[in-house]
Amino acid sequence: MGGMSQPSTDRTRVRRIPDRARYDKSDVLAILREGLVAHVALVDPERGPVVLPMVYGVDEVHLYLHGSPASRLVRQLMSGADCCVEVTLLDELVIARSVFHHSMNYRSAMVHGQPENLEDHAAKNAALKVIVEHVVPGQWGLARVPSPAELDQTAVVRLPLTEAVAKVRTGDPVDEPEDTGLPIWAGRLLRETRWSAPIDAEDLGPGLSAPEHLRSYGR
Amino acid sequence: MGGMSQPSTDRTRVRRIPDRARYDKSDVLAILREGLVAHVALVDPERGPVVLPMVYGVDEVHLYLHGSPASRLVRQLMSGADCCVEVTLLDELVIARSVFHHSMNYRSAMVHGQPENLEDHAAKNAALKVIVEHVVPGQWGLARVPSPAELDQTAVVRLPLTEAVAKVRTGDPVDEPEDTGLPIWAGRLLRETRWSAPIDAEDLGPGLSAPEHLRSYGR
Repeated sequence: MGGMSQPSTDRTRVRRIPDRARYDKSDVLAILREGLVAHVALVDPERGPVVLPMVYGVDEVHLYLHGSPASRLVRQLMSGADCCVEVTLLDELVIARSVFHHSMNYRSAMVHGQPENLEDHAAKNAALKVIVEHVVPGQWGLARVPSPAELDQTAVVRLPLTEAVAKVRTGDPVDEPEDTGLPIWAGRLLRETRWSAPIDAEDLGPGLSAPEHLRSYGR
Repeated sequence: MGGMSQPSTDRTRVRRIPDRARYDKSDVLAILREGLVAHVALVDPERGPVVLPMVYGVDEVHLYLHGSPASRLVRQLMSGADCCVEVTLLDELVIARSVFHHSMNYRSAMVHGQPENLEDHAAKNAALKVIVEHVVPGQWGLARVPSPAELDQTAVVRLPLTEAVAKVRTGDPVDEPEDTGLPIWAGRLLRETRWSAPIDAEDLGPGLSAPEHLRSYGR
């Protein structure tokens, strides 16, 4: 279960329940590609640890984040502050006979590092395309692309995927042997995400309907 | 939109897009009650900022976390280290005419503080009941409750809800006035979570079926 690969740094070594760790980049990438929201932790010099939900995108080499340079925490990312980015996919509730062995099946990916600020417009634009296409594939070619002024108002940073680890729990509850004979149900509930049909904006002009990539959106 | 209440401390003041802030405890509690996974940020003395997904529970006064005292990060929580707990509910994708105004509708709650370690078995047991009943209402009365040995193996901490804030975005995309006439669709996709029917554990004994509170589980 633990895989044959090894953590790239001591910071990504999973010490607690090491069987759940996956150090292969393909495992990390699969989770990052499926998620929509990352939780980004930073140390704010005034407030201590802070964690924020952020939209992101990913390619084979980097994870991309964007935000407003008016945000203090975004400015910290722009300056290369140490950060930790987590994406969690909750798959199942795991119901055991004992309270102690209740659990959740999940896939999570964690990336540590110091972000690199993207300054020139071409690099920012390319990264924003990665983010948009990550969240809604097909959307970049449809929407109006960012203007130079909008690029100036958008901070974009990237984090290398070199220090990354995935953790995965799957399968049934693992009860104590003496509990398996108790007259208590045990098993799993699977979580599914569905998306509604597209809902028109109130100010949508006449004759416009949602494109196919939004009508068939799935995640 | 910003509500009439005020942040309890400077740490919870929302500076970026303050209109999205909700300082009323009822708003924070509603989000915490609906979530299943919290993202907990800490500063690891060796690794810097770290964020971990954790199961949690909540009552009117505290947010409860539990874990194994074998985990270094859990031991940090037990020792009262400064932490930040975030719960994010992703509600909708917001599709604008311009890339720049794409967004997500979400509700998030953030709690800052220094956790208090619960040491005596009665307090631990009561907190674990809050956590179990938060995740699966009705389950505490059905499962085998923790033994003294299991309570010893479980760390339980609580964080007061005094330093907490919610952030909420709802509604349509807000495009630039000059973009609303473009022949580009705009609107929203609503995210829905569904849960499967209960799936029996492979080692489930004969004649047992899932109780009603699991057959009708919703979140």
